[in-house]
Amino acid sequence: MPVGTNATVKALSPRELNEMGAEIILSNTYHLYLRPGHGTVKALGGLHKFMDWNRPVLTDSGGFQVYSLARLRKVSDEGVEFQSHIDGSTHFLTPEKAVEIQAALGSDIFMCFDLCPPYPASHEDVTRAVQRTTLWAGRCREEKDAIASASQSALFGINQGGVYPDLRRKSLDGLLAIGFDGYAVGGVSVGEGKEEMHQIADLMGPLLPEDKPRYLMGIGDLKDVLHAVEAGFDMFDCVMPTRNARNGTLFTSRGRISIKRAEFKEDSGPLDPDCACYACRNFSRGYLRHLFLAREILSMRLNTIHNIHFYLQFFRNLRTAILEGKFGEFKKKWQEIEF
Amino acid sequence: MPVGTNATVKALSPRELNEMGAEIILSNTYHLYLRPGHGTVKALGGLHKFMDWNRPVLTDSGGFQVYSLARLRKVSDEGVEFQSHIDGSTHFLTPEKAVEIQAALGSDIFMCFDLCPPYPASHEDVTRAVQRTTLWAGRCREEKDAIASASQSALFGINQGGVYPDLRRKSLDGLLAIGFDGYAVGGVSVGEGKEEMHQIADLMGPLLPEDKPRYLMGIGDLKDVLHAVEAGFDMFDCVMPTRNARNGTLFTSRGRISIKRAEFKEDSGPLDPDCACYACRNFSRGYLRHLFLAREILSMRLNTIHNIHFYLQFFRNLRTAILEGKFGEFKKKWQEIEF
Repeated sequence: MPVGTNATVKALSPRELNEMGAEIILSNTYHLYLRPGHGTVKALGGLHKFMDWNRPVLTDSGGFQVYSLARLRKVSDEGVEFQSHIDGSTHFLTPEKAVEIQAALGSDIFMCFDLCPPYPASHEDVTRAVQRTTLWAGRCREEKDAIASASQSALFGINQGGVYPDLRRKSLDGLLAIGFDGYAVGGVSVGEGKEEMHQIADLMGPLLPEDKPRYLMGIGDLKDVLHAVEAGFDMFDCVMPTRNARNGTLFTSRGRISIKRAEFKEDSGPLDPDCACYACRNFSRGYLRHLFLAREILSMRLNTIHNIHFYLQFFRNLRTAILEGKFGEFKKKWQEIEF
Repeated sequence: MPVGTNATVKALSPRELNEMGAEIILSNTYHLYLRPGHGTVKALGGLHKFMDWNRPVLTDSGGFQVYSLARLRKVSDEGVEFQSHIDGSTHFLTPEKAVEIQAALGSDIFMCFDLCPPYPASHEDVTRAVQRTTLWAGRCREEKDAIASASQSALFGINQGGVYPDLRRKSLDGLLAIGFDGYAVGGVSVGEGKEEMHQIADLMGPLLPEDKPRYLMGIGDLKDVLHAVEAGFDMFDCVMPTRNARNGTLFTSRGRISIKRAEFKEDSGPLDPDCACYACRNFSRGYLRHLFLAREILSMRLNTIHNIHFYLQFFRNLRTAILEGKFGEFKKKWQEIEF
């Protein structure tokens, strides 16, 4: 799902996301808690009304950003004290608070407040992180169940355990004992390298309940997605299509393209002849290159439209291939393309 | 008309401009000459195809930007040597070259290459600038007439003369002797102050041929527009709506608004209750404030959509008022609003 950090998927309007067929977006609890504040979003009718998006929203718990963005963290069993990356102000997030914020935002899928250990981390450190993540998952479940207005929303548990199979299993056992509407594997793509990430996906995919959504967090490289889908995962989020777009890196059916390359200067063809997005239907590679070099806002817009359209089409085709029993063929085709 | 410096009206797509009813945009010859180069635009099918815009385009001559942006200018009767503000490379623009570039771009309205004196400038300096502007206007006319592919396009002459009525009149006499499809008054809004600008408009409006477009260049303040319309002008261009939008200054039927103001934090109302633009129909002031403070691209997009929509609606209403003989009433209403 596209990531909408500040109550917007960067460079896009909700109208464009709708037209491209995006069905769900991820919003960052950490960012919205700090700015404009969940109270403000609630006062303005909740996240859906705030950003004019009437399809589902998944909110992360803030846990990951607390570790990747905030400063001077102090962790206890109670929660995490940290300083805002925006103004240095001190805040304290607990599992209960993270659920309250997500309720104020009006989320459709809540995520548990978890502890994501850095990489590398010792078995001992990750053991303690898993213990806290499990403890906090139980408290998130309780808090969520106590909020009547959130009764129609889902709550997903997050599996941690770093690269240690025994801790990953232990973490999952804890989550299953509590019971969630969906299960996510977190703490991947934090520096551990492709092979270890694939091993975690291979280990956990088959262990997650088959009748619930199985979500591999923060993964967006399409070859990693194919690997994870084979292991059983069916939900992903990533800034890869949007961030790359703004940097001029575009995904096409023939591979990855850097739009600034001189060879595109007078190229009158579309970015991707197989693509039906607004950018490919109406503009040339030469124009997209010009907009990028001139640092125009429209460059980021058209590039983002293309990459998001490309990703959404990839996932639509992937679902069709699975339903038609052609996943192997689909995977083989994409593995041959240079990304 | 909206200004599209780098072959795009900043933050907008051509689809949005079309939907809002924009009928013409101005493109900057100087910018497109330097990047991507008029040869590249021509190779890619001309400016209309390049930027996917099928309504008229007016191209300025580059003269104004050579004075306001370029470095180390050297002016002779032949033309102007200058250094690019992008990479310092040396270029030489002549009246003939300016017309050639506009022809390569595929402009619908060409502007003569003129010499815009700074403000303040002595009567002597402005006299020489007017002499050259007149000389160059004749050469632009000849060059334009010699290019067969440009026969369907218009060529406008540009009146100069600073704040000196005698030189303004002399400049116009020179232009009228050559003969153009429209007449523009340039060299205003270059630092001379409102009152002097109004005096130039009052002087020149009635002197310009009534049966040809009368264009006051670079004017965009709506009270100035009303003043100039009364003097006889009917064409204007300005970056005011777009540049202000990106800086969070928005025009509404109740006056000018700075969207970042704290009072809008939890304001669930539309930016302008009387406006039918995409931003006003779908988003709250609170959301627009949040996007602006978070420096989101969507902030610049929605703000620009609103300001351009507001300007276009202003001009539609102004035309209606003139046709219905209600200009005085219209002017009075707008003069009472704080802009």
